[in-house]
Amino acid sequence: MSGQQETIVVKVGGSEGINYELVCQDVAELVRAGTRLVLVHGGSAETNRVAEALGYPPQFITSTEGFQSRRTDRATLEIFEMVYCGKMNKMLVERLQALGVNAIGLSGLDGRLLEGPRKKAIRAVVGGKVVLIRDDLSGRVERVNVRLLELLLGAGYTPVICPPAISYESEAINTDGDRAAAAIAVALGAGALVLLSNVPGLLRAFPDESTLIRSISADAVEAYMSYAQGRMKVKLLGAAEAVRAGVPRVILADGRAEQPVCRALAGEGTVIA
Amino acid sequence: MSGQQETIVVKVGGSEGINYELVCQDVAELVRAGTRLVLVHGGSAETNRVAEALGYPPQFITSTEGFQSRRTDRATLEIFEMVYCGKMNKMLVERLQALGVNAIGLSGLDGRLLEGPRKKAIRAVVGGKVVLIRDDLSGRVERVNVRLLELLLGAGYTPVICPPAISYESEAINTDGDRAAAAIAVALGAGALVLLSNVPGLLRAFPDESTLIRSISADAVEAYMSYAQGRMKVKLLGAAEAVRAGVPRVILADGRAEQPVCRALAGEGTVIA
Repeated sequence: MSGQQETIVVKVGGSEGINYELVCQDVAELVRAGTRLVLVHGGSAETNRVAEALGYPPQFITSTEGFQSRRTDRATLEIFEMVYCGKMNKMLVERLQALGVNAIGLSGLDGRLLEGPRKKAIRAVVGGKVVLIRDDLSGRVERVNVRLLELLLGAGYTPVICPPAISYESEAINTDGDRAAAAIAVALGAGALVLLSNVPGLLRAFPDESTLIRSISADAVEAYMSYAQGRMKVKLLGAAEAVRAGVPRVILADGRAEQPVCRALAGEGTVIA
Repeated sequence: MSGQQETIVVKVGGSEGINYELVCQDVAELVRAGTRLVLVHGGSAETNRVAEALGYPPQFITSTEGFQSRRTDRATLEIFEMVYCGKMNKMLVERLQALGVNAIGLSGLDGRLLEGPRKKAIRAVVGGKVVLIRDDLSGRVERVNVRLLELLLGAGYTPVICPPAISYESEAINTDGDRAAAAIAVALGAGALVLLSNVPGLLRAFPDESTLIRSISADAVEAYMSYAQGRMKVKLLGAAEAVRAGVPRVILADGRAEQPVCRALAGEGTVIA
C-alpha cells in the first residue's frame, strides 16, 4: 500500500529569510494531491535569539574536520527543545492545520523516532588548539522508527519532525536536522529529499547566486565540498549519504521562493543523484 | 480489545513542589503492569519563570465567576508553547523513555487532538471593574481525537499530552489542563482520572493539610466550591464534569509524594465519585 504513492521528505532549515508560509502552502498542495509527505524542520536562528534573550548566548564548536555545530550543554539543550519542539514545531503544525493538513508534530524523542549514539567526545578546534569535549549532548541518528511514521502516514497524518534525537541510553541529544532528514528519507524509501535553506543551492562562488551548481553526481560530492560554506557542508554530506543509501535524488533548494518544494521537485536548485 | 484493560488518565500539574521523577516512576510501574495510561501535564510555574526571564512577565485575569486564568496574547502563547510543548513535555518524555516507557508527546494541536471553540470574549474583573477582553487566545476543549489516542495506545505508546488545544478555526488556544484531562478521560471511557498537584487534595481549611476532605459526591461539588483556593476551583469543576459524563471516579491527590498515582488510585486524596 505504502509503496504505491510517492513519499517525499522535505527539510526546511531554521536560518533567517526562509518563508514558512510559502513552504506550508506548498506542502499542503502536495498533501492534497496525495503525496505522502514528511516535513523535517530546523530552528537555529530562533534558538540563537531566545538563548540571547535568556542571557545564555549560543556557542559553536568547529570539529577538526571543519564542521560547525552548536555547543550543547544541558541548559542549551533545554533552550533548544523550547524553540524547536515548542515554538517552531507548533507554529508549523498550526499553519498546516489551518491549511487543511492534519499535521502531527514529533521530536526524535517521541516514540524513539530518531535514535542513535551520543558522541563520547568531540575533537574541536578552540583558539587554534585541539581540545576534547566530553560532556556535549549531541549525537547521530542511526535508527528511524519507521513503524511509527507508517502508522501515522497510513492514518492520514502528516508528520512534522525536529531534533533532538534520543541516545541508546535514552538521553535527549542534539543532532543535525539535514542528516536526520536524510536518515528518514532512506528509512521510508522516499522518492526524493528536498533540503530547503536560504540560498538557491550550492554556489560555486558564494554568495553569487548566478553561480548555482545545477547537478552533482553523488560519487563526486567530495570534489564539491570546497564550494560549500558553513552549514552547506553538512547538507552536501547528508545528500550524498541519502543517495548512496538509495534515495534517487536530493535537491538543495531555495526556501525563500514561491512554491519552494514543487520547484525543487521540478529540478530548480542543486540536484544530487 | 481496548475495553479489556483499564484505562487511567493522570494529570500532573505545573506548580512548584511537584516531584516529576516520582510521578514518572509510578507511571512506568503502572504501564509495565499493563495499564493503558495517558499522562497530561501542566507547566504554569515554569512558564512564569521563562516569561519573566524573557522580559515579558505573566498576567492573569479573573473572570466574573471568580476563575483565574493566564492572559494569553500571541507573545504569551508562544512562550507557553515553548515551555509546555518544548521544555516540560520533552522532559517528561525523556524521563519516561529512560524508565522503559515508549512515551510520545503531543499537544492538542497535533492531529487536532484537543479541539474546541476559542472564547469570543472574556468578562474579567480588572481593578474592581468588569471589562470585556476580546483578543485572548484561550478556549475550551469540546472534542478529543480518540482515534489518534487509540491508534497510539494500541501500538504500545504512552501519550504525554499538554495544551494548547486547537480552535475550530485552527488557532492555537490556551486551555485548562485539568479540564482537558477530564475531557480525555471521558472520551477514552477511563476507569479513573487522577489530578496531581502540590496539595494532598481539597482542604477544608487551606493550607492545613490535616483538614483534607476525603470524599465528595459529584452532585455535591458546588457545596464544596467555597473551600477551593485558586486553581483548585477549576480542578473541582473538571472533576465534577468528568464524573457526570461517566468517569467512575476522580481523585485529587498529592504530586509531591512517593508513588503518587498508585496512592491516589488506592483512595489517598479527595475522591469525587
